[in-house]
Amino acid sequence: MSEETDLKFTYKIIIRYDGARYKGWQRLGDDAGGDTIQSKLEGVISTLCDTETLVTGSGRTDAGVHALGQVAHFRCAHSLNTDEILTHCNRYLPDDIAVVNAESADERFHARYKVLAKHYLYQIDTGLWPEPFERKYCWHIPENLDWKKMKDAAALLVGEHDFTSFTSMKSKTKSAVREIFSIEVIPPGKEGDSIALIRLKANGFLHNMARIIVGTLVEVGLGERTVASVPYLLKAEKRAEAGQRAPAKGLFLETAVYKK
Amino acid sequence: MSEETDLKFTYKIIIRYDGARYKGWQRLGDDAGGDTIQSKLEGVISTLCDTETLVTGSGRTDAGVHALGQVAHFRCAHSLNTDEILTHCNRYLPDDIAVVNAESADERFHARYKVLAKHYLYQIDTGLWPEPFERKYCWHIPENLDWKKMKDAAALLVGEHDFTSFTSMKSKTKSAVREIFSIEVIPPGKEGDSIALIRLKANGFLHNMARIIVGTLVEVGLGERTVASVPYLLKAEKRAEAGQRAPAKGLFLETAVYKK
Repeated sequence: MSEETDLKFTYKIIIRYDGARYKGWQRLGDDAGGDTIQSKLEGVISTLCDTETLVTGSGRTDAGVHALGQVAHFRCAHSLNTDEILTHCNRYLPDDIAVVNAESADERFHARYKVLAKHYLYQIDTGLWPEPFERKYCWHIPENLDWKKMKDAAALLVGEHDFTSFTSMKSKTKSAVREIFSIEVIPPGKEGDSIALIRLKANGFLHNMARIIVGTLVEVGLGERTVASVPYLLKAEKRAEAGQRAPAKGLFLETAVYKK
Repeated sequence: MSEETDLKFTYKIIIRYDGARYKGWQRLGDDAGGDTIQSKLEGVISTLCDTETLVTGSGRTDAGVHALGQVAHFRCAHSLNTDEILTHCNRYLPDDIAVVNAESADERFHARYKVLAKHYLYQIDTGLWPEPFERKYCWHIPENLDWKKMKDAAALLVGEHDFTSFTSMKSKTKSAVREIFSIEVIPPGKEGDSIALIRLKANGFLHNMARIIVGTLVEVGLGERTVASVPYLLKAEKRAEAGQRAPAKGLFLETAVYKK
C-alpha cells in the first residue's frame, strides 16, 4: 500500500446497490473479501490505482440494506479521469452494485468525518399479500396501520435527543446524541399502490437506529404502543424500551449530504 | 380428476409473477411440476378444489417473462368464495407469484378462447450502466437509440398483417395473421430515469412475436436497419428477415382483455 502522503488525489464516488446478497457495507477481514460492498469496490478501485486502496464510506449499512446514493472516497497516487473511474468500476463490479457518479474532491474531503446529514428511506408493503416485484425491497405488513398516529409519534422523535433506546450499539463511551431533522410518514397511494414510505433525515444514525425507529413507529401504527409513550422511550435510554428492529430489506440509504 | 360435466363453477383469476426463476407459464409434463407458473397454480388450486384441477391461462409466457396481469380460469365441482381463493392461493404460492384478483365467471368463460386483446410491456434500460434495481427487468442498451425512427417503424407494424417474419413458430398450418392495435414507444423520462417502455396491444401474439418486434425496433433505433425496410419484412414472411429476439427479462404481460 502506498504511503498516505503519496496519495495526492482524492475522489468522491456515489454508489447504488441492491444489498440483498451482501453482508453489508463494511469489509469483514481478509478472509471474507467477497461478501461486502466495500470489499467489492476496493477490489476494482485497487486495480485502477495500481495498489491496494481503501474506500471509505459515509457509514456502514447493515447486511441486506440497500443504497440509492451511498457516498465514499478514496485517495490515489496518480490522477484519474472521472469517466475512467465510472467505466472501470461499472465494467468490473457485479451487476447489483453501480458507481453512478465520480468526481475529483478536495484532499481534505472525508466521506465519514465530513458528512452533515444522511437520508434513509424505508418501504412498507401494506397490501394483503406481498407484491411479487417488491418482495425483496419492502417490509410486508398486511394489518391496518394508523398513519395519523405514526406521524404524531414520528414528530416526537424529531430534534436533538439521546437515542440510546434506539440503537443496538453496546458502547456506553460514545455519545448517542443525534439530531433528527425530519421523519416523513407517507401512506400508500391510491389506485392500488400498496407501498408506504418513511423518510428519515438526521445528522447521523447510530447502529440500527433507522430500523428501530421504523419498528417503533409500526408498533404505534398497530396500536401496540401509544404515541404518548414515545417521549418516555427517549428518556429511558434503554434499548429494551423501544420497538422491534424493522427488517433490513426495506431500508435504503438515499443520500449522504456534505458542505457544497 | 372430476368429469368435466361435474365442474359447474368457473372462476377467473388474475395473476402477477416475477418470471425470473420459471420455465415459463406452460406446464411441461409430469416430471417438471415445480418449474412453471401453471404447475404452481394447479398445485394450490387442486387442493382448494379437492381434486386435480386444470388452470388455463390466456396464453403462454416464455421462460423468464413476467406478468402484471395474466388471466386464467379453472372449473370446480363445488362453489368457492372468492376471498377463500385469494387467501388460499397467496398463502401457499411462492412469493414471486401472487393471485391479485378472483371472481366467479360464466360457465362459458375460457381464458384462452375468449380473449379479445393482450397488452405487453417491454422495458429497456438506456443508462450507460445497468440500474442495479432494474437489472432483472430490463434489456440494457447503453447505445443511443433513435426514438423517432423507432416510433415510425412501430407505426408500420400496426394493423392486420401476416406476422410470419416475427415468430419462432414453426407450424405453417396455422394462420400467422394478427391485428396489432397499437405500439407505443415511450423514451426514457427526464431527471435521471433511464427506463424506456414499449407497449404493444394486439388481438393476439404469436410465439415470441412481442420480443421479435421489440428486437426489430431496437435494430431500427440503432441504425442497423431502416424504417423503410419494415413493410418488406412483413411481406417476406420469413423469420430470418426480422430482427433479433429481445431478452425475456424485459417483457411483461400487462393484461388480457375480455368482453365485459
